Amino acid sequence: MNEFDFIQKLRAQMKSRKASPRVLCGIGDDAAVITQSLGRDSLITADLLIEGIDFHRGATSPRLLGHKALAVSLSDIAAMGARPAYSLVSLGLPEDIWDTNFKERFYEGYLALAEKFGVTLIGGDISRADQIVIDSIVLGELRSGAAVLRSTARAGDQLFVTGALGGAAAGLKLIELGARLSEPPDSLSLWESAGVRERSLAGGAVARMSEPPAVAGGPDQSETASIDSLLLRQLRPDARVGWGVVLGDERLATAMIDISDGISSDLNHLCLESAVGAVIEAAAIPVDQNVIRLCGRRALDPLALALHGGEDFELLFTVSPENVSRLPQKVDGVPVARIGEITDAPGHVRIREKNREWDLRPEGFEHFSR
Amino acid sequence: MNEFDFIQKLRAQMKSRKASPRVLCGIGDDAAVITQSLGRDSLITADLLIEGIDFHRGATSPRLLGHKALAVSLSDIAAMGARPAYSLVSLGLPEDIWDTNFKERFYEGYLALAEKFGVTLIGGDISRADQIVIDSIVLGELRSGAAVLRSTARAGDQLFVTGALGGAAAGLKLIELGARLSEPPDSLSLWESAGVRERSLAGGAVARMSEPPAVAGGPDQSETASIDSLLLRQLRPDARVGWGVVLGDERLATAMIDISDGISSDLNHLCLESAVGAVIEAAAIPVDQNVIRLCGRRALDPLALALHGGEDFELLFTVSPENVSRLPQKVDGVPVARIGEITDAPGHVRIREKNREWDLRPEGFEHFSR
Repeated sequence: MNEFDFIQKLRAQMKSRKASPRVLCGIGDDAAVITQSLGRDSLITADLLIEGIDFHRGATSPRLLGHKALAVSLSDIAAMGARPAYSLVSLGLPEDIWDTNFKERFYEGYLALAEKFGVTLIGGDISRADQIVIDSIVLGELRSGAAVLRSTARAGDQLFVTGALGGAAAGLKLIELGARLSEPPDSLSLWESAGVRERSLAGGAVARMSEPPAVAGGPDQSETASIDSLLLRQLRPDARVGWGVVLGDERLATAMIDISDGISSDLNHLCLESAVGAVIEAAAIPVDQNVIRLCGRRALDPLALALHGGEDFELLFTVSPENVSRLPQKVDGVPVARIGEITDAPGHVRIREKNREWDLRPEGFEHFSR
Repeated sequence: MNEFDFIQKLRAQMKSRKASPRVLCGIGDDAAVITQSLGRDSLITADLLIEGIDFHRGATSPRLLGHKALAVSLSDIAAMGARPAYSLVSLGLPEDIWDTNFKERFYEGYLALAEKFGVTLIGGDISRADQIVIDSIVLGELRSGAAVLRSTARAGDQLFVTGALGGAAAGLKLIELGARLSEPPDSLSLWESAGVRERSLAGGAVARMSEPPAVAGGPDQSETASIDSLLLRQLRPDARVGWGVVLGDERLATAMIDISDGISSDLNHLCLESAVGAVIEAAAIPVDQNVIRLCGRRALDPLALALHGGEDFELLFTVSPENVSRLPQKVDGVPVARIGEITDAPGHVRIREKNREWDLRPEGFEHFSR
């Protein structure tokens, strides 16, 4: 049983209980929704980030980690069409990390992002742990009944995705190959002072890969910039907060999910919840330009990364045909692409490329694959 | 710097930022308080429980752990005088635990307690981790402006504590000595199926201690019952939800905190926040009867356990003199004891025993003592 199956089981169990009539949406969406009085609903989401699973000490920095911890939860609130408002962080730290300035830097990264979106940190907890453990909790708000669920897509709705895909997964692959940021955004050397044996991050002047690049003469400057850009997609993801607010406020999206596990997984989640199918056009998928560039030189498939790679934190949403013309082209400089449409064939998620068409099976990340 | 100092630092930093006017209470109390519309406030608290730090796999069971995870956060909501309403749990599990029925049993214990207090589980997250990691999040509600803070005690207020103290700390000491529950409340043998090397818990018919008891002839039946009772104070704590609601609804408490770190620490927190002092009577401290009984036989000091032992999750609160007579004697069968009073000597927390009087210094648990 993987974690999705277990969550479904728990959700079924909760449905059989007498639930509070004020819970509009409990387990099973990007965030839970509770009715408050006077036409406002509250939302809440929690995301666990565990060292060695969700990030690697040697490849990131405390400040980047603080940013990412908040971003992943902001993304869940955006995926409900809501505005983030308050947050909590629970932090489990190994003793050697406690004695460094990790905490200060972590909160610098975290609070800089919080400030950008007007989010107030109101609580959390701190404990000791064998590995770094972060639980990120964000509360959001929106007009009563305006939450955009996963379960409300209808046949004929057009399917859109913000930004570009595949970058975060490519960044992860690069990290696994040994690539590091060419200019660390904050002093990463603190890891060394904490007695960490992992490869130093502060020493190198350019992005490095343990596998030599496939081009002759080593990485050129523009390749370095591409690698940095992909690493940052993985290490410092952006949450589409602006898009979330617009789609919710204007009631433009009929259903929405954020791409955390990969579009193949997340589109399947959305279709399953809505009891619909979908067909997407391979040529319409907005693949990250840096992925195309680097993959081309290494005979990798950029489309596979864009479809199955997780952690892009873009928004995948559906719009009814009559509302498509009302959709802005960009929000906060981030474009949107129409990639396909919803069909009335429940569970059938298909992808078309030229004359071929096949099932888009979920191949996203699972913590527990048995 | 210990975690309390760091939290104070973070709190000062947050105060210097432009905070949302709707945050009535942010970092630094048992829970955060946010104003909602129509005369209601929302509260939220998060508590991290880490294997090896906050509990030991070999001494508890998944169901007890589920109960405790929720109870510790219910206690924080009670300590604000509020009613719990919704909850989330984030769970990090080692892969060998995932393959057992840990999850099912954990949620059984968790949901049984949730149901008792009308709490609806609305979300959370699941991830892989090297050790069991639990982040317990509870949301509560109360009438606008009725939250009982730590910072509002006044000189002359009388100091009360619910229930009895020292039991949970004695239970922890017994566990460390090897004592186990005589009748495991659910199948603990699952730990074995998970390949855990720790001492089996299901085999014994009576509570066992690796140190032989100080009385001749081994543990008698009533000693076994006392040990079980203390172990359960540690492993299955009760949150004083009923007391919290009564004290909040009736506006009886002027300030309140729950005893999670030990009364010596928590009373100091309350006095520091309220800029007052306190004097308590040693003879008035309600020491757990089983602690007195077992300590007496082992030449340990029951009062020290009651003062400095954490995790009793009783409520420590102040009442203005004119309201003392309105205080109920019991709520849900749990009595209350007057233990002292608030003074106008900021930071001076004193304890009196017969003719002696001394400073009650915080000796509660710290995760990071440097």
